[in-house]
This record gives sequence, C-alpha cells and structure tokens, in this order.
Amino acid sequence: MYALAERLFPICRSITGNGVRQSLQILQEYIPIEIHEVPSNTPVFDWTVPKEWNIRDAWIIGPDGKKIIDFKDHNLHILQYSTPIHQVMGLEDLKKHLFTLPDKPDLIPYRTSYYQENWGFCMAHNQYLDLQDGEYEVYIDSTLEDGSLTYGELYIPGASQEEVLFSAHICHPSLANDNLSGIGLLTFLAQLLREQKNRYSYRFLFIPGTIGSITWLARNEHKVDHIKHGLVVSLVGDAGGFTFKKSRRGDSEIDQVVSYVLRNSGYPCEVIDFFPYGYDERQFCSPGFNLPVGNLTRSPFGSYPEYHTSGDNLQLIQPNFLQASFDIYLEIVEILEQNFFFQNLHPKCEPQLGKRGLYAAIGGDSDQKELQMAMLWLLNFADGKNSLLDIAEKSKIAFKLMQKCSKLLIDNKLLKYFG
Amino acid sequence: MYALAERLFPICRSITGNGVRQSLQILQEYIPIEIHEVPSNTPVFDWTVPKEWNIRDAWIIGPDGKKIIDFKDHNLHILQYSTPIHQVMGLEDLKKHLFTLPDKPDLIPYRTSYYQENWGFCMAHNQYLDLQDGEYEVYIDSTLEDGSLTYGELYIPGASQEEVLFSAHICHPSLANDNLSGIGLLTFLAQLLREQKNRYSYRFLFIPGTIGSITWLARNEHKVDHIKHGLVVSLVGDAGGFTFKKSRRGDSEIDQVVSYVLRNSGYPCEVIDFFPYGYDERQFCSPGFNLPVGNLTRSPFGSYPEYHTSGDNLQLIQPNFLQASFDIYLEIVEILEQNFFFQNLHPKCEPQLGKRGLYAAIGGDSDQKELQMAMLWLLNFADGKNSLLDIAEKSKIAFKLMQKCSKLLIDNKLLKYFG
Amino acid sequence: MYALAERLFPICRSITGNGVRQSLQILQEYIPIEIHEVPSNTPVFDWTVPKEWNIRDAWIIGPDGKKIIDFKDHNLHILQYSTPIHQVMGLEDLKKHLFTLPDKPDLIPYRTSYYQENWGFCMAHNQYLDLQDGEYEVYIDSTLEDGSLTYGELYIPGASQEEVLFSAHICHPSLANDNLSGIGLLTFLAQLLREQKNRYSYRFLFIPGTIGSITWLARNEHKVDHIKHGLVVSLVGDAGGFTFKKSRRGDSEIDQVVSYVLRNSGYPCEVIDFFPYGYDERQFCSPGFNLPVGNLTRSPFGSYPEYHTSGDNLQLIQPNFLQASFDIYLEIVEILEQNFFFQNLHPKCEPQLGKRGLYAAIGGDSDQKELQMAMLWLLNFADGKNSLLDIAEKSKIAFKLMQKCSKLLIDNKLLKYFG
Repeated sequence: MYALAERLFPICRSITGNGVRQSLQILQEYIPIEIHEVPSNTPVFDWTVPKEWNIRDAWIIGPDGKKIIDFKDHNLHILQYSTPIHQVMGLEDLKKHLFTLPDKPDLIPYRTSYYQENWGFCMAHNQYLDLQDGEYEVYIDSTLEDGSLTYGELYIPGASQEEVLFSAHICHPSLANDNLSGIGLLTFLAQLLREQKNRYSYRFLFIPGTIGSITWLARNEHKVDHIKHGLVVSLVGDAGGFTFKKSRRGDSEIDQVVSYVLRNSGYPCEVIDFFPYGYDERQFCSPGFNLPVGNLTRSPFGSYPEYHTSGDNLQLIQPNFLQASFDIYLEIVEILEQNFFFQNLHPKCEPQLGKRGLYAAIGGDSDQKELQMAMLWLLNFADGKNSLLDIAEKSKIAFKLMQKCSKLLIDNKLLKYFG
Repeated sequence: MYALAERLFPICRSITGNGVRQSLQILQEYIPIEIHEVPSNTPVFDWTVPKEWNIRDAWIIGPDGKKIIDFKDHNLHILQYSTPIHQVMGLEDLKKHLFTLPDKPDLIPYRTSYYQENWGFCMAHNQYLDLQDGEYEVYIDSTLEDGSLTYGELYIPGASQEEVLFSAHICHPSLANDNLSGIGLLTFLAQLLREQKNRYSYRFLFIPGTIGSITWLARNEHKVDHIKHGLVVSLVGDAGGFTFKKSRRGDSEIDQVVSYVLRNSGYPCEVIDFFPYGYDERQFCSPGFNLPVGNLTRSPFGSYPEYHTSGDNLQLIQPNFLQASFDIYLEIVEILEQNFFFQNLHPKCEPQLGKRGLYAAIGGDSDQKELQMAMLWLLNFADGKNSLLDIAEKSKIAFKLMQKCSKLLIDNKLLKYFG
Repeated sequence: MYALAERLFPICRSITGNGVRQSLQILQEYIPIEIHEVPSNTPVFDWTVPKEWNIRDAWIIGPDGKKIIDFKDHNLHILQYSTPIHQVMGLEDLKKHLFTLPDKPDLIPYRTSYYQENWGFCMAHNQYLDLQDGEYEVYIDSTLEDGSLTYGELYIPGASQEEVLFSAHICHPSLANDNLSGIGLLTFLAQLLREQKNRYSYRFLFIPGTIGSITWLARNEHKVDHIKHGLVVSLVGDAGGFTFKKSRRGDSEIDQVVSYVLRNSGYPCEVIDFFPYGYDERQFCSPGFNLPVGNLTRSPFGSYPEYHTSGDNLQLIQPNFLQASFDIYLEIVEILEQNFFFQNLHPKCEPQLGKRGLYAAIGGDSDQKELQMAMLWLLNFADGKNSLLDIAEKSKIAFKLMQKCSKLLIDNKLLKYFG
C-alpha cells in the first residue's frame, strides 16, 4: 500500500483531468477497475459535471528574474482549476492571487476554485513575507474546457445481490493521508476480496470528492437499494487512533459492526454521530438516499495540523499504520460476511449436548462448563431476532468463537440459518 | 411588572369575592381581559362552585382592651373563608382558632378553610406565646353566601386555531411571589403578544387556584383539543434559579422547548418530572385531559422558607428577577412560534450552494466551512421528521442561527415548510 | 427450615432413585405434594429419562488393608451414577477414577456422570497425595437400571388460573446451600400460601435439575401459558447478599417486582441480566418457552468457594439467613398478589377529596399535604396503563402505603380495578 502511495504521490490529480486518468490506470495494474468518463455539462441532480482541467506548467518569476514558485516543485503550488495566464504585474495585484497559511508559515496550503473561474498560487507564508516590491511574471499553462469527469469502479459479485460499498476520493494532488491512504487500502482490499467467494457483492468506487459521488449516485440511482452497508475510506495512514463517524441512520448494521471491531481492537478509538459535512458520506447520507454508509478514519476529518497542506506527505503516513487500518477493514468485512441470523432447531428446553459429544462427560466441574457457554448462548438466543453479533455482544464471547460454534451446531443439526 | 404587583399587593383576594374582581379590573387597565362570573353551586366535574366570600373587617381585642390582631394590618391575619362571628371567649377556646408557625415564629401563616365552614386568625408564633389568660373579644365581619366565582380570560387569535395556554392563579391575598409575580409576568406577556402577529393563538387565564382551573375546564371541555402547549406560571419573582416541572406526558414539545431555553440560559436550572400536586397543572394534567402543560417557576413549589407566609412580600420579589423570568418566557414563545418542520427540496445529494452564492468560492479552507454548517445541517435533516429545534439540538447550533438559515434556504427555494 | 435441611442432609439424592423418593416423603409431612414417577426411557423433548440409580455401599481398601474411602462417611465420596464394581487394581489404574480439587485440597468435590457410564470416587486432594503404591480393592454396590424419575409437585389453586411457579432442584446429595436451602424455603412458603386465599394459583416443583424441568415441561407443555411469573429458588441459606438473575425477557413483571423488593430491602443486592446457564431457569427460559422466570439466590450461582464441594454443608447455611430469604420471597409474593391496574373514576380534574373526608380541612399547610400525596399519585396515574408498582416507583412512595391508598379510594368509589 505504501509503495502504491509513493507511485501516486507525484501525480497532479484534481476532480477531473489526466491526473485522475493516469492514477486510475496505475490502479488497473492491481485490480480490474472500469474507468468511466462522464461528459462535461452532464446534469447530475442539482449539479452539472464541470469542465475538465489540465495543467502542464506554472511559475512566477520575481523582480530579480528568479523563479520564486514553480509548479514542477510541488503540485500544491497551483490553485486547483486555475485558468491560464501569462502576465507581468506588481506585487499588490499578485497578492490577490496568493494563498498562504499564516499560522503554519512553513506549509503550502491546498486550495481549489472549482466552480468560480480564478487563478492563483499557494505558498509557504514565510516565503510570502519575503516577497519584494517589483514586477512579477506570472505563467500558468492550463486548460479548462469541455471534456469529462473520470472515475473508477470495481464490482465484485457475491452470492447475493446485496452489496457493500467502499468509496475513496481520488481528487487530491500530492496529499498522502488525504487520500492516497484510502486509495491504497481499498485497492488491496479489493484484490483480496476478488480472490475469495463472498456472501455479499462488493462495489469499490474511486471518485472525485463531492461531484464524483453525486455523479455516481445520479447515474446509479436504480442500484442504490442494493447497498446494504457502506464505508467511505479516508485518512487511514497516519498515527492517530481510529474514528468512526456513524451513518445518518445511526443504528444500522455497519454502525454496530464497526463500533464492535474498534471497541475490541485495542486501539484508541472514538465513535461519533453523523454530521453533514466531511467526505462523500455527505452525499450517500443525504436525506433522499439515507444509505447505511459511515466514514472510518484514523485521525478525524480536518483535525490534524497537516490536513490540506504540504505537510500531508509521504512522511505523515507509515506502512504499519496502513496495515493496521487494512486489518480493521478486513475484520469488518469478515464480520459482515458472517453476521447471520440463526434458528434453534430444538427451541423447547436445551438440546442434549452430551449425547452428541458436545458436552464434557463429567458434570459438576464449573471450569469445564465455561467451554460450553458459547453453545448455550447461541442456542438460547438463536430465535431469529438476534444476529450472531448481537449474541456475541450480549454474551461478551468473541465473535470468532461464536462463529465457530455456529458451524459446529449447524453440523450437529441443532441450528439452521434463519430466513 | 413590579409596579403592578405593588398595586395588587394590598387587595385581599380569595377564590371568590370582590378582591378578585377588583384585581381583574386593575388588569383590564393593561389588557382587555374578559371577566367571567360563574354562579355559586354550579357543578363543575366532581366539584361545586363554592359560596362567595367577602370580608370587611376582623379583629381580636385582648384582656387589656387593646386590639391584638387587626385584619386591616395584614390580610393574612384572617383564615380565608372565615364565617362571621362576634363573641367574647376565654384564651383556651380562642386558641382552637389561632394558626401560627412555631418554626418560623415571626411570620404570619397563610391558611384557608374553603370547603369546611370555620373561622380563625393567623398570627406570628412569638405574639401567640405572649397571649395572657383572660377574656378576648373576637370580631369577624364577613359574608359567605351565594354569589359567583370570578375569573379573567384573554384570547389572542393567531394564524392557527392551535393555542398556547398560559395560566396564573389569582386567589392569594398579599403574597407577592405566589402569585403576583405570575400575574404581572402574564399581563405584560399578553400585552406584547397582542401587538404582534402570531402563528399560534394565545389564551391567558387569571383564575383562582384549583377550583378556577376545574371550572374553566368544565366550561371549556370542547376547546381543550386546541391547546397544543401550555405553562402554569408562578413563583417568577424571587432570586432562585429556574425550575421546570414537565408536563405529565414528559416528552411534549413544550417540555423540549422549555428545557432547551433553560439549559442555554446561563441560569442555574433544574428540569423535573411531573408530579400530581403543585399548581393548576394538576388539573390540566389530570388523566382525563393529560394536556401538554408544564409549570415554570424560579424557586420550586413550596420550597422557599417564606412560602405561604407573610414573608412572601414585596421585598422577596425584585424587578430584575421578574424581568429575567419574562425574558425566558418570551424566548419560549419565540421558539414555539418558529419551531417548524421543513422539507429539503433537493433531498438527493447536497444542493449546490456555491452557484446560489451561499458557499465560499475558494474551497479547501476548513475555517470557512464552519460558516456553512448550519445550512448543511438543516438541509440534511429537513426530512419532515425533525423540527427546527430538533436540528438545533442535534447540531449544537443556536436556534436563532438555524432560524435565519431556514429563511435563507426558503428564499433560495432549497427548503419549504413541511405539512 | 434449618431443621428440615438437617433431616434431608444425610440422604444420598441424585437425579433419580430412592434418595429423592425418601426426601419427597419427608416433605409430605409438611405439605401435600404429589409424587410423580416417570419411567426410564420416556422421551422428553431432545432427552430421554435416564435409568434409575441406587447405591447401597461403596469403599476402597488400601494396600495396608484399611478402608481409605467409605461412602458411608460422606455421600460425596461416590461419583454420582457410578456403575457397580468389585475389583483389585493398582494405584495408576485407580487414579483414573479418582476426582479431587487440587486448589481446595481439604474438600471433597461433587461429581456426576449421568449420561456416560463410569464409576469413580471423589476425595480430598491432600488424602489423594498420600496414596501409596500397591493394590487397592474397590467396591461399589450400586444399581443402574430401568426404573423411574421422581419429582414432587404441589398446586395451590387461587382465584385466577394464572399461576406463579416456584421451582427448586432436589437432586443434590449432602449439599446444604445448593439446594436444601431452596427446598426448605419453598416448603414453608407453600405451607403459608395454602393457609390463605390467593389471587394467583401457585405451583411448587421439587425436581431433579435439568432433566427434571425438561421432563416437567414436556409433560405439561399445554399448561405453561398459565405461568405468569416464576422463580427458580436456590442458594438462599448462605451469608451473601442477594442476587437476582432476571428472566430472559428482562422486563417482565417478576423482574420489576424482585428488583424493587431487593432495592428496598436494605441488603446488599445485585440484579443481573439473564444468561443461559445456571439452574432450571435455563429450561424455563429456553427460546421455545421464554417464560417469565428468574432466579433469586443469595451468593450467585457457582460463585462461593464451597460450591459443589463438601464445604457446602450445614455450617455454611444459617437459620437467620434462611429466614431473611424467606421474608424476601414472601414480600415478592405479596406484591405480585396486590400489583393491580386501576382506573380513576373521575379522570377529568382531581376529584374533591375534602368532601369525602379524605383531605385535611385546613388548606395551606404544606406539611399536611404530604399525607395526601399517595392519593394524588394514584388518582393521576390510575389510567389503566400503570400498575400499582409502577406508580409506587414513579412516586417513590412505599408500595404498602400505595396499596392501602388503593383500598381507601376504591371504598370511596374514586377508583376501580382495571380490566
């Protein structure tokens, strides 16, 4: 995952353009994602697919003839969606187009102007303070014209049409945690899920933030009823504990499963209620859809000092943090896959476990009884109203042991799947 | 409010009689209340309107020929509903008709005997202890005969027939907090509401406690379905924090609104569950009506040492406390008036705020986003199931900002009133 | 109760056999229980009634010719359901049939092998460590053959067919707290309930654990709908506080009543959620029955160090602890018997208590009002939705006072029983 992030880091992505295409093509080396192109000006709900933006070069030459800013040094130097310009101007005029972070004076901010035509440069505030009066030559070699919005999609069919949605945004240039970490995690999660038989179908979306999820929802409105669980993936490479922002519903199965996994993970973690800003869960959880989609990050949205700056680089994320996040996501998938409802086939009194070899022969030893508890819990609450996870939580017995138990009891014809 | 209380304080009110009439006539100088007279013996549910009581004079002359108690000195000296008497008697016989407070020996208690004919005097316990043996001349010039029960009512029609009920008792003689404070607050609240257009209709009742609310309910049983919210007003002039006793329902809108206002008021406050004694909420919340009517006081019912004694005088209440109470009641009214349900007109994905000039042009700055949060919260939860106050509480954004937001979004055709 | 426990203690009971018969015959001296015999091999749900086991003698003679273990010394020396044997063997072979408690080296464990034919002896671990190599003569004079399972039942008809079930297990040899304490308590509770008229019918079961309740349920499946409340009684003679394990439903009336009684008992107590192991509540609360049956003990199931050992003897239980438990059970019965729903016959406004002599004549004294509160609470919440206990809990007024109040209000035609 880290190596993939390293490959993707230098590419200048935006909500449209060749950077996105190039990134998705790299992902295709790992997983067979389908690349969709949606023409500019396509109406998508209240929005319109914007013009496609591409940038080749951009710089500013100062009064002394030296390049003070060069887009080739850092993708973040350019205000995203800057229109082309080649002009000489005084410092005062230039300053209206310079963006800095006075409280983080060494970092370059990340700024966009997708829906209002503008041009601009982002730079460290310390460098900005050093700018001398005089004439500046400004050059942006970009195009902003009709083209298309590009996104990637991978559908892995499972035994059921009911699907689990994973979505990562792919519109950020040279930001590592936000969101190369998510792209990397999902790529390898998809790779793994393709290799096994799954109960659910899985849908992976690699989309530009906001406009991408709006576009996908507009084009796939007829399919959303299949989405039974979902997570928006972002900020999964940093050193922070885990933060789960629940779906708008707040009590859906994905909310229960992720909360359970985090609570038992040993990592510091926080589970918070839905709020209507953040990542693409904003769109999936808009009131007209209200899908059971949460957002699972390490550091929460917008909270770490390097967020949306040049500090969100390949040093901020680390392979071991990525791996831990991957393991959490995988455990969530494993529980979703196995979280069935069961029915006890001998619901009146306990079935006799002993005659089936499921019970220690010498009664009376209270220690030995502990071993049979999982069976007793499962049999007692296998009434079609409690999922396996419900019973695991009620009994405080590990989900995995409960799952083993369920197979044992099914083999012994004491239990069947419900419904 | 304080000046009105000063004018009303010297009048000897009871549950019937000229003191009530005179008090209501004074209120008519402020607001056009209608004065109702209900004849004695009228059956009202399980009760009967009692005889009318009026008192002109009352005193006791002691063995040394001096007046030891004179009704003209303090209205509380007389046991309310005392029958007429003029008789000389020994101290022992007299003592059966004297009421004192041994644990508050300087204060005159307030005592009534509405439904059992009796006579008596109330006095400071210290004075009682000094009484000498000998003959006492007792004189009470009162009448207790068929007449009528008097109450005042003001109805302010609003856009809707649904109404908010405010009720204060008007039966206490020379008690300032209980309940000249409530009468004063409601008089000025009514004055203000008459001057503006309101969503709800408002009904103000100035009634004798218990028998007054029972009488009103018996005569207006067909109207109570219009009562959507209500408060019984009392004890609003003292120095205590605020106490809200919820309606019997416990989860009605008035319970939510008052709790919200108090919690955000900065004053010490307590919200307590309904209990079936106290003021007229007892009747409004009897199981056959179960109206959404609570009781909002400063010091809670019966809790302060001066309660029902001569210590509940014009020194106990203060203009600034009355004003603060008034402001709280007014804020409650303002929220009730504005607490609508809304429907997002673009419920599928977020509407594009930017193209309507509702969103900062330069994206990526997490500070600026804070400004749009109220809009996002409102749009996301404007699904017809959450009131504006529900959304304010969920988002922790001030109700007033939410309300502004709702108007902005309605103007931009993004929102409409629901239902 | 303690004397009865003393009589029963020496008898070697098991899940079948003459020890149970003899014990039940002793109980018949106190209460007219019916003794049921269910033939071996009778199918009962997933189980089969086992063979009947009886034991007359058992011992081991060591290499030095001395009896090292003699069943006549202690019933626990024999593994329950041991098959007959008379054989000489070496120490190594013998050890496979010896059971000890290494962590409680002075105590004899209680062990059973009901459903797998075996033989064995239980002994103190310290004695076991002293065993010398050599030849041992092993003798068990037992029978394990077709016969019957025996249980006792007492049905006390009440005004209603709805019944309260009390159940104690009677299968443990020479264990005092587990469960002679329960047998004793139920015997005397039954004796008392037979002497009075009851609202509910009462059913007392004295049954072997697990197979006994399964057998009873299998034979009485058509009757279980009558069971409205139930408790499994065990471990009620030790010094511990009280532990109530709620029914599987968790919110049934028995759960509320027992929790209320314990909370107000002054004893240390704990109320815990249902779990599917323990005593016969396992069967009564199996998902196919899901009866409102809890388990009320002093020390919780399996928790005290003497549990299932020779330390659970007549010194562990004490008359005063048994008596306190009895009193708690009796209070539970008394509340169940009186926990009716009521309907206020004057639901609109308060009825006039004064004209019925139910209200202090001189109003205005806040102390006196306290006395009428129970009436006000009951009248206000007597809407057919709140039981008497619900109202007692809401008002924090003692159930017994509430109950007196209900009779007073019924006598005054202000209240009637609901439904």
